[in-house]
Amino acid sequence: MSALENVRILDLTRVLSGPFCTAMLADMGAQVIKVEHPKGGDGSREPSAAINGESLYFMSLNRGKKGIALNLKDEKGIKILKSLVEKSDVIVENFRPGVMEKLGLAYEDLKKINPEIIYASISGFGQYSPLKNLPAFDMVAQAMGGIMSVNGGAGDPPTRVGVSIGDTSTALYTAFAIVTALFNKEKTGKGQAIDVSMVDSVFSLLEMSLFKYLGDDGEVSGRIGSRHPTSYPYDVFEAKDGYFTISTFDNTGFSRLCTAMEKKTLLTDERFLTDTIRGKNDADLKEIIHTWSKALTVDQVLETLEKNSVPSSPIYDIGQIAESDHIKVRQMLVDVEHPVAGKTRLPALPIKFSNTPAKIQGPSPLLGEHTKEVLRQVLALDEKTIKELEVKKVI
Amino acid sequence: MSALENVRILDLTRVLSGPFCTAMLADMGAQVIKVEHPKGGDGSREPSAAINGESLYFMSLNRGKKGIALNLKDEKGIKILKSLVEKSDVIVENFRPGVMEKLGLAYEDLKKINPEIIYASISGFGQYSPLKNLPAFDMVAQAMGGIMSVNGGAGDPPTRVGVSIGDTSTALYTAFAIVTALFNKEKTGKGQAIDVSMVDSVFSLLEMSLFKYLGDDGEVSGRIGSRHPTSYPYDVFEAKDGYFTISTFDNTGFSRLCTAMEKKTLLTDERFLTDTIRGKNDADLKEIIHTWSKALTVDQVLETLEKNSVPSSPIYDIGQIAESDHIKVRQMLVDVEHPVAGKTRLPALPIKFSNTPAKIQGPSPLLGEHTKEVLRQVLALDEKTIKELEVKKVI
Repeated sequence: MSALENVRILDLTRVLSGPFCTAMLADMGAQVIKVEHPKGGDGSREPSAAINGESLYFMSLNRGKKGIALNLKDEKGIKILKSLVEKSDVIVENFRPGVMEKLGLAYEDLKKINPEIIYASISGFGQYSPLKNLPAFDMVAQAMGGIMSVNGGAGDPPTRVGVSIGDTSTALYTAFAIVTALFNKEKTGKGQAIDVSMVDSVFSLLEMSLFKYLGDDGEVSGRIGSRHPTSYPYDVFEAKDGYFTISTFDNTGFSRLCTAMEKKTLLTDERFLTDTIRGKNDADLKEIIHTWSKALTVDQVLETLEKNSVPSSPIYDIGQIAESDHIKVRQMLVDVEHPVAGKTRLPALPIKFSNTPAKIQGPSPLLGEHTKEVLRQVLALDEKTIKELEVKKVI
Repeated sequence: MSALENVRILDLTRVLSGPFCTAMLADMGAQVIKVEHPKGGDGSREPSAAINGESLYFMSLNRGKKGIALNLKDEKGIKILKSLVEKSDVIVENFRPGVMEKLGLAYEDLKKINPEIIYASISGFGQYSPLKNLPAFDMVAQAMGGIMSVNGGAGDPPTRVGVSIGDTSTALYTAFAIVTALFNKEKTGKGQAIDVSMVDSVFSLLEMSLFKYLGDDGEVSGRIGSRHPTSYPYDVFEAKDGYFTISTFDNTGFSRLCTAMEKKTLLTDERFLTDTIRGKNDADLKEIIHTWSKALTVDQVLETLEKNSVPSSPIYDIGQIAESDHIKVRQMLVDVEHPVAGKTRLPALPIKFSNTPAKIQGPSPLLGEHTKEVLRQVLALDEKTIKELEVKKVI
């Protein structure tokens, strides 16, 4: 059995934040019905990274969903959507605020049809905000949410985090919210509306940088690359053939590092007596570490550090982590058979359940692949009606 | 009513990943009982950012929880913990794999006491992995999860994301997993074990960089600062007094930008004819944009861009976003009264529910603040027994 078996989710979302969220729910066993416009569908079907011309972005974020094509600009399309709402537990959308209202699909409209519906909205700034009408891309959420101001090297401009954390963190919060609302509905029989904003989500990840600002000192953090704000050596370092990390916070760790480097005299060096003093003389210490590490390979460095119990690690590129034994043993890349792309590796949900394991339930749908199946099985429409809808290009 | 009312969570976690997760559950109304060692407690009580000497890190991540002091190295402490397991729905821990087993608190042990218990474990590499015994800090999860290899400027070393995304993304996945398991338990009466790893969580956020690697080209992405891998201008730019972003993906956006800059001749410039060609001539285009933008303030630039519907944004530092109208209207900073720190602003959960609103239920506990209350109310211990435990330093 799957954890979310018999939960039906109507998914009006496109591209990243919404589909990432509903893919989590699909992996947990919910039936996710993805609604796309009959012409072209979700923009992420456009291949940038592809197998056999099929977009990996789309295949990964929409695995295991049912796909139906439905024209929401057509009155009949809206009628079908509303019939589906009657038969669903959850609806998720990530249009700009106001679009659902214009379509007659606001929460107030849909709860009349299904009072128990859970209605989740994802947007850049939320359903109410002085900024709610501005377009919001991941870059905007990162820029305004504060994260870019603390990401990047000390001399660099504010730097976008190299993955779309504005979208994906919002997806994670929304998935959590939806399941929390489902749990509550199971207990009380009541649905509700959920409003999650990308800027709020990014803001909520600031932790230490925000705490410093909210504290007595009111300090506004800047960019400091990889290093720890106070402790040292907690940073990225170079070996002959690449980079590695060291994470020490105290004199025990530093002492072990000195042993590893065979430089025990550093322990009595005035510049390095405590963590805080080391933090201030970071450039000197980095140079000393580099004198040692740049003569060795990453493997040699890490072997020595590990032997001396110095917290340290390699820095994997995308290929190295993807092909690592760790990812294999954790089954974090899963083969999925796709009708066009063939055998495709997709990243799994990083949650291991002992009783109701999450799993990728199948490939992503072709555009409109399950339209007729869903109209027949969920809405019990007859063949004549379906034919008519097809002729009129509603589906 | 709160969404997770009457759910009891036993929280053995320390510092960031675990407490961030259980704070989300506390805001949703679960009763979270945080268990700390009677001597010093959670390391994050050590103030780095503080109000009146109280750690903001601790106050934020442990708001609304009950705090009990319990020595788990003492047999009697273990006995009390097991009694609490009997009365709880969920237990969460983020020790290194093996520690709970040694304490006799493995899932196999606890499900004998409470077959319905949901047992969530957070760790660096998971409960099974060739690397499971390595120490895992946020830096390690980021380094090995692949995200550092795609974060930072083109000429920079791999760069840690400036917030602890290794911890917080794991917290988000675990919170989602716990509530999903609670939903399933509500339906089936069955508990289960949950295993979430920090490296897996970071890996799951790679999206486009991973898709490129998994696609036909097998491309290993590198660091490209803030810019889009192909489109341009989608990047960070400089004005006279600071930075701003532009996010265009197509000729429409570019045309609007040219109008805004009053440089329409660029539209027929061979270097900038299409998005892809612009992406290759990014340095030239950046220079042209800077010629325009560096003569203006950020406000002036954004006013002009907005007037011309060019997707753009300011880049807020921590103070600017914290004091913004957006954060005020969204009530994303909430006043909490703490017995020592006094009135403290804490970041709220970025989820708005219409029916069961999340809220910060109260301040973080002082060390052991609720020990006696919990022993009396949850375990119905008498005063004599409690006194004895106190004398023997079990609590």
